[in-house]
This record gives sequence, structure tokens and C-alpha cells, in this order.
Amino acid sequence: MNVVALAGGVGAGKFLRGLVRIVEPRDVTAIVNTGDDISLHGLHISPDIDSVMYWLAGVADRDRGWGRSDESFRALDEVRRLKGQSWFGLGDVDLATHLVRTQLLSEGKTLSEATAHLTDALGIPARLLPMSDDPVPTMVHAATEEGQGLYMHFQVYWVQRGARDQVKAVRYEGGQEAAPAPGALEALAGADAILICPSNPVVSIRPILAVRGIREGVEDARRGGTGVVGVSPIVGGAPLRGMADRLMPAVGLEVSAYGAAAAYPGLLTGWVVDERDRDMASRIRDELGLRIAVTDTVMTDDDAAERVSRVALELATG
Amino acid sequence: MNVVALAGGVGAGKFLRGLVRIVEPRDVTAIVNTGDDISLHGLHISPDIDSVMYWLAGVADRDRGWGRSDESFRALDEVRRLKGQSWFGLGDVDLATHLVRTQLLSEGKTLSEATAHLTDALGIPARLLPMSDDPVPTMVHAATEEGQGLYMHFQVYWVQRGARDQVKAVRYEGGQEAAPAPGALEALAGADAILICPSNPVVSIRPILAVRGIREGVEDARRGGTGVVGVSPIVGGAPLRGMADRLMPAVGLEVSAYGAAAAYPGLLTGWVVDERDRDMASRIRDELGLRIAVTDTVMTDDDAAERVSRVALELATG
Repeated sequence: MNVVALAGGVGAGKFLRGLVRIVEPRDVTAIVNTGDDISLHGLHISPDIDSVMYWLAGVADRDRGWGRSDESFRALDEVRRLKGQSWFGLGDVDLATHLVRTQLLSEGKTLSEATAHLTDALGIPARLLPMSDDPVPTMVHAATEEGQGLYMHFQVYWVQRGARDQVKAVRYEGGQEAAPAPGALEALAGADAILICPSNPVVSIRPILAVRGIREGVEDARRGGTGVVGVSPIVGGAPLRGMADRLMPAVGLEVSAYGAAAAYPGLLTGWVVDERDRDMASRIRDELGLRIAVTDTVMTDDDAAERVSRVALELATG
Repeated sequence: MNVVALAGGVGAGKFLRGLVRIVEPRDVTAIVNTGDDISLHGLHISPDIDSVMYWLAGVADRDRGWGRSDESFRALDEVRRLKGQSWFGLGDVDLATHLVRTQLLSEGKTLSEATAHLTDALGIPARLLPMSDDPVPTMVHAATEEGQGLYMHFQVYWVQRGARDQVKAVRYEGGQEAAPAPGALEALAGADAILICPSNPVVSIRPILAVRGIREGVEDARRGGTGVVGVSPIVGGAPLRGMADRLMPAVGLEVSAYGAAAAYPGLLTGWVVDERDRDMASRIRDELGLRIAVTDTVMTDDDAAERVSRVALELATG
């Protein structure tokens, strides 16, 4: 059973920890968002790849959500003292990932190759692919409270400016010129199920779909009979994590389990909603024509994640 | 009293701590070797600038010699686990310097500007100039035990390969195309004394002199009556620190207080030798035509460093 998952950050990491308990890990391919990759201090930082890696390797910080467990921040504290750019959280142990990745890239390796090196060193048997080896930065058109127009990298909007600006539009820059990572289209074509992790549709999943050929790959697989099932990242009208509620309205999406499913027109066969959104199930089924499963989607531990991934996989293959 | 010091790493840092106790720190300009700067993990690392900064800011590790005091190595340990390049010692706190410098360079600042930012943030009132804002890497021609020829960056020879190869020649690549850092030639022209810190002549001081115009600037100042005095880095026929004994013979220099002075033909007016080399004083004076001072040059603490710098300064100005 070959499973392909489209993955953002922390929600995807938790979900995939459950998935590799019910599917042979080597048969799982996660295509991971790199739209919020950023170059900072000369380092190539891939926040979503890192989150997924750390969760799958069992070294993620469960409380903080992002970064490594048993982390320290001595370098970042000193960056602050040295009047450097300290707005992006970088732990001392986490830094090693960025150092090794950047060194590999500087030696001419691709982001795919650097990711394979890191997942291998971390002992992760599942396959992690960046959505592309080419940069496809997620850019945000916004306006300040004073009405000043801004066009900025998503991380600047999200972390540096604390999502305080009014978002007008989101753009996946260069997506149609970018090539999918080697193996991504083949994995989609050979998938028995395609799962969309409970990640932010606007800044995690749609960037992946914006890479030339990936949306078409999912559509082709679906036409060939492969189930394509997502898990709603919105529970009870609010994101479980993060600030998706700031971004979904800006691109015309209702902040609800319905709105998140509506983010993928023509792609899905099924949608998993939280039991708190049970009353929304029939609307999603009827209006969007999807098969629906209802479960507790809050992944407080690996057992919960296993249950959620099993529900999604069964909906895709059943 | 304006003093210019040509500076390598740790020995220079210790010496300058003494110098700023007897000269107004803002009147001290240190022109620092950047020949062993290296790009690693995408970061711009300037080992000698860092050593001098850390010593002057009082945050150097006195026991280890290099790097920061109260240091930890969590990032580097993890780089090793991730099968990255871990041969170059990078502490967690030390990393902050490289992160901030690299960020500033990536924003288009020069190495001089980045250095000024860092010394300002560290509260260092003396002026530190890189020898050049252009790269002038110190390269080593060598042969392995098996006779294989190698041409490599000094740090690869020194740190990665542990100085185990036989050095045939040392080259300061691009020195004659590089421009001195802004202010360096003006500082030399306006100096009341020029001091050469007790640093490795082959890989610390000569790289500085290899930058177009710097040697001429020292010669002009000397002709104009400015004393040019160095402190021998060789005591009792061996370097106090480091592996200068591997490099001096390769470029035809005797490993002695005499040989170190002979590394600067036509530049010096005086030379400070350690009392253990007292019997060599007359040879240096007679053969090289230098004024000689003899003192205990081992800088075990700031009081000792102050004494050594005072002896050098008096020899230059007396």
C-alpha cells in the first residue's frame, strides 16, 4: 500500500507519526511544503520539512510545537545581544539542521538530496520530499493598519510582524516555473491513497499544489481511482494551531471545516471532520460531493494520531 | 598617541588587552588578518577577528584559547550526529557572531561594516579593521606522507587535516588585487607607533602585509620616522601557541626569535624578545639592524600583557 501525503508543518508531523504506525514507513512519501522556506543569517531554513522530520524522528518539542525537544537558545540570545536578526526562533540543536543543510546546498546538492541526508541521519524510514528543489516563496500582499501596502515573504508577515497586517492576497511565486522534486510525480502516480494532512490550506497545502504538475498529478491519480482524502485543520470554526483564520478569509475561504475542504475544488474524494463539526458534515457532503468521516481529530498523542490517520486512510481506500 | 597594531588571533588579542590599558582605546587601530577566514555551513567565519574581539570584550575563553568563555557545543554535537562537517569548532554562543556577520554581509554590508557592528555591540572602544573587505585566502601547497600534492585553504591544512602534511609553500591568494579596508592606510600614515603583535608571521602577519598597499604603508610610515616594533611569537625556539614551527621552515624562516624578526625585512625598527632568548638579542641587533628589548613575553594575565605592550610601545617611540 503506497501512500502519499501532502504535508505542512506540525499538524502534518503529528498525523504522519500516526500514519507510519499503520502503513509500512518506507511506503509513505510525504511531499512537504517549502513555500515558507527562508534564508536567514545565510542559512537555508525549511520550517515545514524540519517540523515533519523532528516529529517523525521523535525529537520534536511536543509542548512548544515547533523545534527540537530539550532545546536551548544560547546562540539566539547572543544574536539579540549582538543586535542581529533575532525574530526567527532558532534553537541551538535546531541550528545544526540548518548548518548541515546549508553546507550540503553550498556543495551543490539539491534540497531533495539534503533532505534525504538529514532524514537518513535522523533514522526516518519514511520518504520526505520537498515540494520542489526550486524556490517557490509564499508571498503576502497586505496593508498595515495605516493603510500602507506591503509585499513580503510569508515569514516576515507571520513571525517578524506577528500577522498584524491585513492580508489582501497570497501568491506562490514561481510555482509554475518550478519543477516538482524528483520522485514526487511518480509517487502520486503510484499511490494507493493520497492524504492531505491537517495543515493550513493557504500557506501549507496550496503552495504544494502550486508547483507545476503536482495538482495535475493528484487529479490524474484521482481520475485513475485513487482516493484523495484530507483531514480538516479547522475544528469548531478555528484552526487547532496557527493563524489560518487570518489567511483563509483573505483568499475567500470560510474559516470552517467546510471552508478548508472548499480550498481544494476538484481534488478531494473525501474529508475527515472533527466530531465538533458533525453538523457541518451533510453540507460538505452535499455541496462539495465528498465522502465524509467524523472523528475526534485532536491528536494529543500518537494513539490519537494513529486513529485519525486510520480514519482518513480507510475513507480513501474503502 | 595613535597606535596601529597588525594582529593575528589569540596572541594579538592578549597583547591588545594590555595595549588598551596604556593607550586610549579609541586611538588604537588593529588591522586584523582575514587570510584564514572560511565559509562553512554558509556562514562567514573570521577566526582572527573573532579572537581579537572576544579578548578585547573580555569574553574569550582563557583556558581553551579560542572561542567564547562559558561556551557549549550543542549545535556542533548535533551537526556531528547529522553527519555534517564538524571539524571546525563552533560553540553555540560563538555561532551568534557568525550568524550576525553573515546576515549583515547578505544585506550588502562590507566585512568592515559588519566588524564595526559587532565590536560596537560588544562594547569594544578600540577600532578593529579587517585587513581587507576582499577575500585574500591563505592557501597552502603541501604533500601528504604518500607524496600526493595538495593545494588547500589554510583551515583545511590546519584544522581539518591537523597540520599533518608537509608544507611546500604558502600563498596569499588575491592579495595584490585586494584593497585594504577603508581607513587602514590612513591609520598607518597617522600612526605614532606601529606594533606587530606576537602572531604567527606566516599565516597571521604576512597575509596582512600581502594586501596591496599595506606593506608600502608601513614602509612609508617607517621612513617618516614612525617606530615599527614587533613582539616575537617564538620563545625558546618554539611557538608559544599554535604550529608556527611547521610553517616557518617551509618559507625559509628559522624557528626562532631571530627567524620571526627576519620574516619582515625592511619593515621593523625594533623587536621584543623573550628573556629566554636573551642570548639571541645581539645577533638580531647586528644582523637585522634592529633595536632590541628583552622581557618576559608570556602573557599569563592582563598585567603581563600590559608590561609586554609597554615595552614594545616604548621601543617604538623612545
